[in-house]
Amino acid sequence: MRSVEHIQRDIETIAGFTETPGQGATRPTFSPAWAAARDYVIRELEACGCRVQIDPAGNLRARSAAVAFETPAWLSGSHLDTVPHGGNFDGVVGVVAALEALRAAREAGKVLPMELVVWAEEEGTTFGLGMLGSRAVAGTIDADQLASIKNGAGQSYLDAGAAHGVVPARIADARLQPGRAVGLIEVHVEQGPGLWNNDQPVAVVGAIAGRKQYRLTVKGVANHAGSTRMSDRFDALAGAGEVIVAMERLARELAHDSVITVGQISCKPNAMNVIAEEATLTIDFRSPSMDVLGRGDVLIRKQIDAISDHRRLTYELDDVEFHPALAMDERVCARLHKAAAKCGFGEIPTTTSGALHDAAILAPLVPTAMLFVASRDGISHNPGEFSRYEDIATAATILGEAVRNRSLD
Amino acid sequence: MRSVEHIQRDIETIAGFTETPGQGATRPTFSPAWAAARDYVIRELEACGCRVQIDPAGNLRARSAAVAFETPAWLSGSHLDTVPHGGNFDGVVGVVAALEALRAAREAGKVLPMELVVWAEEEGTTFGLGMLGSRAVAGTIDADQLASIKNGAGQSYLDAGAAHGVVPARIADARLQPGRAVGLIEVHVEQGPGLWNNDQPVAVVGAIAGRKQYRLTVKGVANHAGSTRMSDRFDALAGAGEVIVAMERLARELAHDSVITVGQISCKPNAMNVIAEEATLTIDFRSPSMDVLGRGDVLIRKQIDAISDHRRLTYELDDVEFHPALAMDERVCARLHKAAAKCGFGEIPTTTSGALHDAAILAPLVPTAMLFVASRDGISHNPGEFSRYEDIATAATILGEAVRNRSLD
Repeated sequence: MRSVEHIQRDIETIAGFTETPGQGATRPTFSPAWAAARDYVIRELEACGCRVQIDPAGNLRARSAAVAFETPAWLSGSHLDTVPHGGNFDGVVGVVAALEALRAAREAGKVLPMELVVWAEEEGTTFGLGMLGSRAVAGTIDADQLASIKNGAGQSYLDAGAAHGVVPARIADARLQPGRAVGLIEVHVEQGPGLWNNDQPVAVVGAIAGRKQYRLTVKGVANHAGSTRMSDRFDALAGAGEVIVAMERLARELAHDSVITVGQISCKPNAMNVIAEEATLTIDFRSPSMDVLGRGDVLIRKQIDAISDHRRLTYELDDVEFHPALAMDERVCARLHKAAAKCGFGEIPTTTSGALHDAAILAPLVPTAMLFVASRDGISHNPGEFSRYEDIATAATILGEAVRNRSLD
Repeated sequence: MRSVEHIQRDIETIAGFTETPGQGATRPTFSPAWAAARDYVIRELEACGCRVQIDPAGNLRARSAAVAFETPAWLSGSHLDTVPHGGNFDGVVGVVAALEALRAAREAGKVLPMELVVWAEEEGTTFGLGMLGSRAVAGTIDADQLASIKNGAGQSYLDAGAAHGVVPARIADARLQPGRAVGLIEVHVEQGPGLWNNDQPVAVVGAIAGRKQYRLTVKGVANHAGSTRMSDRFDALAGAGEVIVAMERLARELAHDSVITVGQISCKPNAMNVIAEEATLTIDFRSPSMDVLGRGDVLIRKQIDAISDHRRLTYELDDVEFHPALAMDERVCARLHKAAAKCGFGEIPTTTSGALHDAAILAPLVPTAMLFVASRDGISHNPGEFSRYEDIATAATILGEAVRNRSLD
């Protein structure tokens, strides 16, 4: 199958654009490595007869020359930016699948009513906040906010993006125009082991989990590690340890598909021989069910309160962010199932996305669904990330079939 | 009682020598604040008829002019260096108590066969290793080692100390001369709440706890916090959390006077939305019983192994330091009890030191004991540290009586 070869070449070429050769993909948004990857995609698009635009927020949009930008079309794409030392598939797969769908249609002498999108920023590691390109298109972030968030070099999104097509004065013009989008389909790697372990190449995403994030600071009393008996301690780090264990247990008890992660921790004074007076950690809680998110929020607060209380510690719990859980559009999901069957892939499963994606930002505005590709052992945000080129080609084929006309049904 | 006034003035004056006025005592060894505190002590010693020497390792030694440095005498003293933002009593109390014992004897027309010692460095926060002055006198550290340890400004102990009496070529000459020391008595604040809570001003220390320190690195797999189910995780920080809780429980189960502290922690990549692939923490385990230290060491290793095993994590456990538990000399302890009774303080209790002190370094070489002064609420290594001036005066009176002659019995 020629698509497999094209996809392998695309992915390997883009993998070469990294700030950390030999140590994974590192492509911060607007970096030279990121720009080189986007330039490669532009050349490939132009080679298959597409016209390319960069919108004022820095998103790349491309359509076949036969499909005017003013007409309704499907949107499909993902992102090229990565976390530091990330993998070669996260984001890239969604861009390459849409690119290959356009190529395959052209080879077959067909025109797809589809616009390929490369969202300018998704991961959140470049500017400390993620999904910036899709937020600009959804109108949920404005130029002032984009001017206030900075990358590691101290440049704002607007300043860093100016050389790459961002037009600060026209950010609002990037907003989605009514009637231009039929629906949105994002192909993405699963980033979990579910499909891989069940030997399924692809699945339709029925819902994207909601996310609540918190920052917890536990406060005790610094004291001497040798001369303070266990019963006389107000040990903030021991309290934090109990919270970590309790959050993990709570996630298992809440629902089979809810997850809670403590991924960040620090303590003061952070000395081997001093009992910690303060420990700060983050809590990231996700579930595809709004009901579970609500119940879990109550239980998280209750458990932290109980742990602090029995240890005679105090605490501050700050809400960092809340994304509601999102059901995908049933019509678009049905189209993907039908397309898979029609292309000879049989009945493909439906799953849930634990991760947020650009699709979650657009879903409230456009009929949206996602197509997941199996991730080997579920490894992601890691140089060991891998998906089979055959599976990505399968996704590209299903995508091409699903967007072959402008109908939602 | 005049002693109380002297002691209050000494402590308040020394408290004024700090790099962080208003934010606790910060007197790194060989800093200007440390030197100013030592100069004050030298002036006070000279004012009460003492001769002062600085030995080649930087320790201050002072004897009444009537007691030649070549003759046997008791040693008593402590340290003037502090942890950053420490209290005004840790170390200082032992220097001031010995100083007041010398003053009171002179006022009474007596000569104490006692040498006051200010150990040059005790806390370990200046050069990353503690009790350097007493180690040099005990002969357990040499010039090469003192040349290799550096302070925050990158100066070695030898370089930083050169302006304060350290003679690099003569470090070996600081070693204890046989026959010069009858015994050693260190007065120190308890740094725990035992005496304060029981309304006891002072206690004899019968043993100094031994200490085992470890550094543990737990290793898992970094993965996406949203898309990795709880059952598919190898979460290094969750493993570390379980270790923290297990160490705390183990300390309580081992013995009433054993303590285990996890005071330092870090994790990688330390991101809110990434499952930690690595978590590093320190374990500080102390007990006055060598048997408990031995059993505890086995159980610490066993528990870490079991936690890693059931979580399918790997780990590295490094031994950082081991100080054996030390019984104090029974004759010196008995002298302190008898001296307390003779001075009208009745039967004073015997306790254990959870913290290490310079006395622990000298104890294998010289008959040694300690006298603890009550610490308010057990607060130490903290600007809130406080001991009653009356209680320190009580300690000085008992010390003066205990060292009134050269007999050990």
